[in-house]
Amino acid sequence: MTARGRFLSIEGGEGVGKSTQINALADMIRSHGHEVILTREPGGTEGAEVIRQLLLGGSAERWAARAEALLFAAARSDHVERLIEPALASGKWVIADRFIDSSRAYQGAGSGLSDDDIMTLHGIGSRGLLPDRTLVLRLDPKEAAQRAAARDQNRPDRIQGRAEDFHSDVDMAFVGYAEREPRVRLVDASGTAEDVTARLVAQISDLLVEPA
Amino acid sequence: MTARGRFLSIEGGEGVGKSTQINALADMIRSHGHEVILTREPGGTEGAEVIRQLLLGGSAERWAARAEALLFAAARSDHVERLIEPALASGKWVIADRFIDSSRAYQGAGSGLSDDDIMTLHGIGSRGLLPDRTLVLRLDPKEAAQRAAARDQNRPDRIQGRAEDFHSDVDMAFVGYAEREPRVRLVDASGTAEDVTARLVAQISDLLVEPA
Repeated sequence: MTARGRFLSIEGGEGVGKSTQINALADMIRSHGHEVILTREPGGTEGAEVIRQLLLGGSAERWAARAEALLFAAARSDHVERLIEPALASGKWVIADRFIDSSRAYQGAGSGLSDDDIMTLHGIGSRGLLPDRTLVLRLDPKEAAQRAAARDQNRPDRIQGRAEDFHSDVDMAFVGYAEREPRVRLVDASGTAEDVTARLVAQISDLLVEPA
Repeated sequence: MTARGRFLSIEGGEGVGKSTQINALADMIRSHGHEVILTREPGGTEGAEVIRQLLLGGSAERWAARAEALLFAAARSDHVERLIEPALASGKWVIADRFIDSSRAYQGAGSGLSDDDIMTLHGIGSRGLLPDRTLVLRLDPKEAAQRAAARDQNRPDRIQGRAEDFHSDVDMAFVGYAEREPRVRLVDASGTAEDVTARLVAQISDLLVEPA
């Protein structure tokens, strides 16, 4: 019988080097003999990518907070049921670029929805699946905002178009999760890419048992 | 100060004459001096109609039950917040072709989601808004299925494409709501259109007070 794979989510705002680090982490895990699947939210499956287009397209006012939270939960439900759970059941590792904690931090913060509401939607939509570990890449919020603005000035979308104050609230939300939930780890994203990868690996080394 | 309008939902399978009856009911309510807005689910607003396309297009397997329930709840959230609540607040009556009870009967029946799950999604998405009265048009299920099949043979969609047994389960679900919830009324849809309209009017006559 195949051992169940591990599920990692990587969180962090624009400009923290998330994509680079996800690839480096996947290479390292593969070098230990595991198959690794990379995916992202919102999206990751055919249905979820269609919902992603609804979420990221259009004006900031296109969706009110409640409808937006339900659309994220719908995309995640499809993603979990059709990609993440089958992959884990067959022994593969899954690394998701964002997962439930992004919904908590982005849709929960100041939207009129509580963290309990977001987690209730996750319970119904995705049977409450949580990552084995969640790694939150963090830079000083102002530095991250400057890096992101420089990179994304030609392709703003609904979510990234929000203000710097909002990003600071989001950062504080992640700090709170890390304080209360042992699966969530804050990782300093400053320095060289190699430095950051080493910090990430240190946070998952206990999960890295060689396959039988 | 304007009195809040009344909210009616009309339920019933294909072939029971729902569209005809909704128009007749609206004319009658207007003759009492009220403004009436007609709408439908899934849909009714720009955002909800986009979600409607996702729900009704594609194969029967396009969405698993959980994602489907969340998409219906997202469409309803937009519909309630941007059309139904503002209309009621301004004193207009709203008649919706299907509302939450369709989600309970269609998404709840045999999907692995409980009625509590569907109502929890409605609580978060639409603050649990319920119609003042829900009128369920009913024909013998076999007769209704034959009428619907004759009418819809050239335009099946994901929801209507389901089997007759399923429609019978849905009908039993509506019967159960009517037994337990006073707002829900079963109305015999057999006989002439005028006969049916008269039965519907009898079920809402207590709500029909002339505006001041």
